[in-house]
Amino acid sequence: MTNRQQSTSGEDALIARYFRPLATDPGALGLVDDAAILQTSGDEIVVTTDAIVEGVHFLPDDPADTVARKALRVNLSDLAAKGAAPAGFVLTLALRAQDDAWLAPFARALGEDAGLFDCPLLGGDTVSTPGPVMISITAFGRVSAGKMVRRSGARPGDRIVVTGTIGDAALGLDILKRGAAAGLGEDAAAREMLVGRYRVPQPRNAMAEAIRDHASAAMDVSDGLAGDLAKLCAASGVSAVIDSKSIPLSGAAMTWMARGAVDIEGIVSGGDDYEILCAIPEASFESFAQAAGRAGVAVASIGTVIAGASAPRFLDAQGREIALRRTSYSHF
Amino acid sequence: MTNRQQSTSGEDALIARYFRPLATDPGALGLVDDAAILQTSGDEIVVTTDAIVEGVHFLPDDPADTVARKALRVNLSDLAAKGAAPAGFVLTLALRAQDDAWLAPFARALGEDAGLFDCPLLGGDTVSTPGPVMISITAFGRVSAGKMVRRSGARPGDRIVVTGTIGDAALGLDILKRGAAAGLGEDAAAREMLVGRYRVPQPRNAMAEAIRDHASAAMDVSDGLAGDLAKLCAASGVSAVIDSKSIPLSGAAMTWMARGAVDIEGIVSGGDDYEILCAIPEASFESFAQAAGRAGVAVASIGTVIAGASAPRFLDAQGREIALRRTSYSHF
Repeated sequence: MTNRQQSTSGEDALIARYFRPLATDPGALGLVDDAAILQTSGDEIVVTTDAIVEGVHFLPDDPADTVARKALRVNLSDLAAKGAAPAGFVLTLALRAQDDAWLAPFARALGEDAGLFDCPLLGGDTVSTPGPVMISITAFGRVSAGKMVRRSGARPGDRIVVTGTIGDAALGLDILKRGAAAGLGEDAAAREMLVGRYRVPQPRNAMAEAIRDHASAAMDVSDGLAGDLAKLCAASGVSAVIDSKSIPLSGAAMTWMARGAVDIEGIVSGGDDYEILCAIPEASFESFAQAAGRAGVAVASIGTVIAGASAPRFLDAQGREIALRRTSYSHF
Repeated sequence: MTNRQQSTSGEDALIARYFRPLATDPGALGLVDDAAILQTSGDEIVVTTDAIVEGVHFLPDDPADTVARKALRVNLSDLAAKGAAPAGFVLTLALRAQDDAWLAPFARALGEDAGLFDCPLLGGDTVSTPGPVMISITAFGRVSAGKMVRRSGARPGDRIVVTGTIGDAALGLDILKRGAAAGLGEDAAAREMLVGRYRVPQPRNAMAEAIRDHASAAMDVSDGLAGDLAKLCAASGVSAVIDSKSIPLSGAAMTWMARGAVDIEGIVSGGDDYEILCAIPEASFESFAQAAGRAGVAVASIGTVIAGASAPRFLDAQGREIALRRTSYSHF
């Protein structure tokens, strides 16, 4: 540095070029500090962290813009399920090299989603890795003190409710992995919808207020409905009975099932749904359903919380229990 | 899951076994929820995030306990430099497989440091990766509203001050990489000290109050003193002149330099110091030095902030400018 100019490293230049434009919140300090400031005003701060790894949570040839959206949205989905309003996020980005053709659409899409969900970039860390690309995001949300919706509040008699449709993302991943060999390879529109559900989750942040006002327990469905329901029940010290034919399916998933290319186990154990799973007391259900209607989000009542410590049971149309060999995705 | 028991996945079992014992803060909700709660009371929350990658920030054969300590301490160092008291952290751990012989000492050391620095585990995400181990931590600190010390407040006439000693960690890394070929290979005690400085930073959280009370600007030295000083000056819109012989060196580093095995450029451009670099107004320096003394941390005044936009100049014992070809570590 003999030229007497303030020089910046490649890492600083990368941050300045791609991510400083996203750091619109005053607390981000323009990404030129070591830390960011999260201002509070009597609220509690809800903190959640989720990472996505190339080859594990997204595919090496997924477009950079969808990778960015997925990285942020899997965290936004957690905030929604906790009844919290997004307040901002920090980003750790591990890259093999600075590849502008990848970074430009990544940063642009991340900024678009940050604006769309009112969740500004507050800071981050950019590191090199010899391995797969990894994006780790920690997101923050606000709730009034004591109002975060936990996994642990479900009570016998509550309805089990899910938003949206279940299983689409797992089918989308199947299409990406197996191509035409997957169960619905020939229907382009359905294929595109399912792949989109895998690549770009639709977090239900529009439902946060309704969840906060009405749910006794909630979480997002990320690893598979059956396994995630088992976690919610375990945290609440209850069990549940699910009417499998009430599980909401997209038209594409119904077609796929009708052709025998996937069964109910594939639907309820597939991951990446990023819908909200919650328990709603019977007395609150009508108000909750009305609030969901106002938010423009479909909700379906799929079963009932019961007393007990056994795993949730999934019943078929004849009321017989479906034996599930697997219930969710596990990394280990 | 036909056995009617609540089952847990390998991932859940990993979390329950290794990390639930660390989640002692009520806001962590025992790590059984999707999010954690950070309680506030009129303070602002300082947020910082730093990741370490195997083969980049730590070596594949570094012991698991030192990897854990480094992962947390590089974040604690940021909180210290910002004048914030640690409030907790979330952990993202990317592993190739569940290796208990690695995880057990990792979790034990992480818990010990969380206790030592009063910075509890609040939550996290554990994912599989086909690549290098990566640990990404987002840490939180508290400061009174408006009191976070930024990079941007340095003013001409302020002293430039650093804590501890500079350059040791870079020499420690050199020993680990080059073995006996490194400049001090034969002195076992010095070798151990330097390697320890690389593997286990000593964040200066004891200095947080003194920094908050007296510093006009501060950051931690993580990528190299020269480059990090340039960043502080750029954020503050100032320059600086550094008296290189005032830069505090350990006995081992002095010996190494005396033998010609490293020069001042190697000292001030090496990374991983995790000392605090700050600007202290002249009128506050005595009070600051006394506070440092009470905290048991050595501080050294190494130069002066001057007006201007040029890069900081490092002068030798004869007052001649030292030409630095590199000033810091950059990932890209």
